[in-house]
Amino acid sequence: MYIEKINGPEDVKKLTVDEMTVMAGEMRKALLKRASIHGGHFGPNFGMVEATIALHYVFESPKDKIVYDVSHQTYPHKMLTGRKDAYLYEEHYDDVSGYSNPNESEHDHFTVGHTSTSVSLACGLAKARDLKGEEGNVIAVIGDGSLSGGEALEGLDYAVELDGNLIIIVNDNDMSIAENHGGLYGNLKLLRETNGRAECNLFKAMGLDYIYVDHGNDVGDLIEAFKSVKDSRKPVVVHINTLKGKGYAPAEKNKEAWHYNGPFKIETGKPLYEMTEEDYSDISLNYLLDKMKKDPAVVAITSGTPTVMGFTEDKRKEAGKQFVDVGIAEETAVALASGIAANGGKPVYGVYSTFVQRTYDQIAQDLCINNSPATIVTFCGSVYGMNDVTHLGLYDIPMMANIPNLVYLAPTTKEEYLAMLDWSIEQNEYPVGIRLPGGSVISDGKEITKDFGDLNKYEVTQKGSKVAVIGLGTFYGLGKEVAEELKKVTGTDATVINPYYITGIDAELLEELKKDHDVVITLEDGILDGGFGEKIARFYGNSDMKVLNFGLKKEFLDRYDVVEVLKENHLTKEQIVEDIMKFI
Amino acid sequence: MYIEKINGPEDVKKLTVDEMTVMAGEMRKALLKRASIHGGHFGPNFGMVEATIALHYVFESPKDKIVYDVSHQTYPHKMLTGRKDAYLYEEHYDDVSGYSNPNESEHDHFTVGHTSTSVSLACGLAKARDLKGEEGNVIAVIGDGSLSGGEALEGLDYAVELDGNLIIIVNDNDMSIAENHGGLYGNLKLLRETNGRAECNLFKAMGLDYIYVDHGNDVGDLIEAFKSVKDSRKPVVVHINTLKGKGYAPAEKNKEAWHYNGPFKIETGKPLYEMTEEDYSDISLNYLLDKMKKDPAVVAITSGTPTVMGFTEDKRKEAGKQFVDVGIAEETAVALASGIAANGGKPVYGVYSTFVQRTYDQIAQDLCINNSPATIVTFCGSVYGMNDVTHLGLYDIPMMANIPNLVYLAPTTKEEYLAMLDWSIEQNEYPVGIRLPGGSVISDGKEITKDFGDLNKYEVTQKGSKVAVIGLGTFYGLGKEVAEELKKVTGTDATVINPYYITGIDAELLEELKKDHDVVITLEDGILDGGFGEKIARFYGNSDMKVLNFGLKKEFLDRYDVVEVLKENHLTKEQIVEDIMKFI
Repeated sequence: MYIEKINGPEDVKKLTVDEMTVMAGEMRKALLKRASIHGGHFGPNFGMVEATIALHYVFESPKDKIVYDVSHQTYPHKMLTGRKDAYLYEEHYDDVSGYSNPNESEHDHFTVGHTSTSVSLACGLAKARDLKGEEGNVIAVIGDGSLSGGEALEGLDYAVELDGNLIIIVNDNDMSIAENHGGLYGNLKLLRETNGRAECNLFKAMGLDYIYVDHGNDVGDLIEAFKSVKDSRKPVVVHINTLKGKGYAPAEKNKEAWHYNGPFKIETGKPLYEMTEEDYSDISLNYLLDKMKKDPAVVAITSGTPTVMGFTEDKRKEAGKQFVDVGIAEETAVALASGIAANGGKPVYGVYSTFVQRTYDQIAQDLCINNSPATIVTFCGSVYGMNDVTHLGLYDIPMMANIPNLVYLAPTTKEEYLAMLDWSIEQNEYPVGIRLPGGSVISDGKEITKDFGDLNKYEVTQKGSKVAVIGLGTFYGLGKEVAEELKKVTGTDATVINPYYITGIDAELLEELKKDHDVVITLEDGILDGGFGEKIARFYGNSDMKVLNFGLKKEFLDRYDVVEVLKENHLTKEQIVEDIMKFI
Repeated sequence: MYIEKINGPEDVKKLTVDEMTVMAGEMRKALLKRASIHGGHFGPNFGMVEATIALHYVFESPKDKIVYDVSHQTYPHKMLTGRKDAYLYEEHYDDVSGYSNPNESEHDHFTVGHTSTSVSLACGLAKARDLKGEEGNVIAVIGDGSLSGGEALEGLDYAVELDGNLIIIVNDNDMSIAENHGGLYGNLKLLRETNGRAECNLFKAMGLDYIYVDHGNDVGDLIEAFKSVKDSRKPVVVHINTLKGKGYAPAEKNKEAWHYNGPFKIETGKPLYEMTEEDYSDISLNYLLDKMKKDPAVVAITSGTPTVMGFTEDKRKEAGKQFVDVGIAEETAVALASGIAANGGKPVYGVYSTFVQRTYDQIAQDLCINNSPATIVTFCGSVYGMNDVTHLGLYDIPMMANIPNLVYLAPTTKEEYLAMLDWSIEQNEYPVGIRLPGGSVISDGKEITKDFGDLNKYEVTQKGSKVAVIGLGTFYGLGKEVAEELKKVTGTDATVINPYYITGIDAELLEELKKDHDVVITLEDGILDGGFGEKIARFYGNSDMKVLNFGLKKEFLDRYDVVEVLKENHLTKEQIVEDIMKFI
């Protein structure tokens, strides 16, 4: 196999176009086998195989710097830059991360996992090059789906100001994770249909030079195009038309399902493991579809990840006008929700914790200053969530819980979530966030009668003395276990509290605890800095109450083992009880 | 005067075009007099007088809803919607805020002060209208300067998905606060030069209908254009060519200087009060210009507010390629800085605290995960800063200080700032933020020998016992006053500490304090929630140390009196000493 002999870009340059075309097939075969066993991002990589080969044939990486947007499409790049073993040999599958990673190779320039950043980051590399009077090409590779993000559009607008070399490869496979949404996709379609000749051209309107490559999976055509822009003295867009999932029939056929996959049977494409366990996506979907039927003002919003709330293609059809995908555009999603709520609609924006980070100012300004009664549901805000450094769900509490006016809630069960969601949709006073718990869904069938509009009223679920355990969201369960363990070890009956509210403290209850408690411990599923526990520590700062905050250290974790991380952060019930014993 | 008889849009509709044209002159005269006495946003309002009259003549506000971007241009709108007295009569000048404000009028739909939000907010109003099966026009009014912001471009891209009425008025005066930067402005120019006929059209590329009005200060032409799009069933852009500052020669001549103004002499345009006191803009400018000459890798970055670091037009020329204005595009500014730093450049991004909010995810992902050694200097992060609800500088600590890897510093003097800035520019290990103190610049001439790379080492500036006062940034001075007051009242010599670091604690020193201190108080110039003091409270939570955190309550303040706000938050030295006395 050719690919077995590729130890770096220099080896790619030795091949003929025909040999490279053969190698593309070899690479797909390896990617397919790895995906079927290991899982990962599928479609984006299969579409970019030829383009990646052509890039490394034409340009001189790492002197020429390639920045991959979101880096869902970097597997072929890694195969050609000294990391082929991680794709060819099962025992090495875990040698590499799923994203571009400077710690792995000098051919990777940034750790990237969020979309729409490549053009602006590449502008920075190019600007530094020019300040230092150096040479070399800087290449940003961005998919059409990422173009709708504000940072990408800002970058396209800024690029011409560089007044130096910058090559922007637009990898157009006519898909985001799901189908594209937004007017610019009509323009990309027009450009594809006119072989790039249409006068109305988003990129030219941004002041950029432009060429089009219709056969974006043809190594020869791509090499020719890349050669024509190499060493360009000004920013230029190379718009390449590729096929997402190319080379594997099921992926070509169902592009959305094959954006990312778990292990599957190659012959059929059927997953090896069926997800049968109910999750918060299903729960949200079922509630919302039912609610929509009863109330035409209810609308679900996504920013390019419709399945976060379970809205697969058929369910999107069922919701009709009551489901909105703004495309990858979190800022607009929040502003839209605020506008809908301000005009009497009932919007629910579902978003992953890691992506809600992309819209801090809109939550503060568009939503909270205006007190628009919209609902934001944050998914995977948990140590049990995604574990790549770019996709951690450990920071949304410090980011959101300190914004005035926002009511940020932490349910501990399915029943609490649905009660909060229903309350939030029907109330007209507050912007509301609901942070879903991590781990498996807990459902105790309990009927929830609590009025969540009576803000910051915590609930004592077990009355004890000496020690009070405040378990927030995911960690409420851990709190109960801690109480049991404490009883077992010391005989002490601890008080257990479900706080519900991340954004406020129940001063009355906390005062009450002073009477017959010496220690209050807080448990939260996120970093401690700027979080929930510190508010409790501040409250008791002037008193004799001992406060122990349990949660995660402020750091960027990467591909971590949950059990280990919990241990390192003293988050097992045994460790917590040990710590408590020092104070009773 | 016609304007005196305008109590609402219905009165505008009674006028003829000639009468409205006369009224436009009356409105400018009133705006000029008010500006000369009261100050405020100047240019944007003067350019929008005719368009605002035409809007209220053609549309039926508030049934038809007008959303003004950033709302620097809402004074004429306020004059025509029942608030004329606040512009005609000096005693009523303070009856209105400087921004659109739903609390003032049913004709204002959002409180808006940040740019680039209008299209997405308007999409929300329109979507709710359609969900409820209602009628009516929704109009977004956005200036060309605001178009470069990611949220605005996202909104333009999303709008066509609405598939219903939306009218986007692009008020093109060919200026941001300073000159425009970005490729899209070349397209606006092309459209102006071709009377809107050019085929390459950014708005059409976003899938939007488009019409052009060359005489954007002609009431008749504007009325005709607005009538032609009224009740449009799909989104349409009306691109109007206006003159910023129109009607006042000095403002037409120097558009940048007259974007916003303080009181001035109408005859000459000369300001009544000269700002002679040195501020952190001058300090930053002088340092950076000098540094740039010595080191070509140093580059200053702004996102549309060049004078935040003192870069007026002449100074920008002097800096040449070493000064970058990305336009209003904070996300790209941070990504650019990260890219420059990653490639060996030395970027310094100067930004107001209220606007750094617009780039949380880029600071976390593009900058901090990649540990790029770039510098962000935040201005006006203080209770002494801007005091409109949309421009508060009280939230950057919770937003930034809890992001891993970021080193966020709080200088208390000019000398500390310059030492930190120089250290940050020269080091290669950390992304660094520097939060400038509020109030007048304090300069003690002290030479700074501290190595800021030895992270989280606080400095004891006065050794005492019993009580330790940790005064962060702006409030270090208050901390010293508290210590003096305490000495006076109780004879106690308090320890005074300058922490320097917002992002970390000096555990060794805090442990040390336990030996001979009973109370630690923290002082910070921002909200307490998620802030600096809570980290100290968490540290001492398991000890007998009493901790009192002083800072601001988590709330949105609006046009506040600093002295009152400090009192309400127990931030006078007398109040603080009183509180301390309860514990010694």
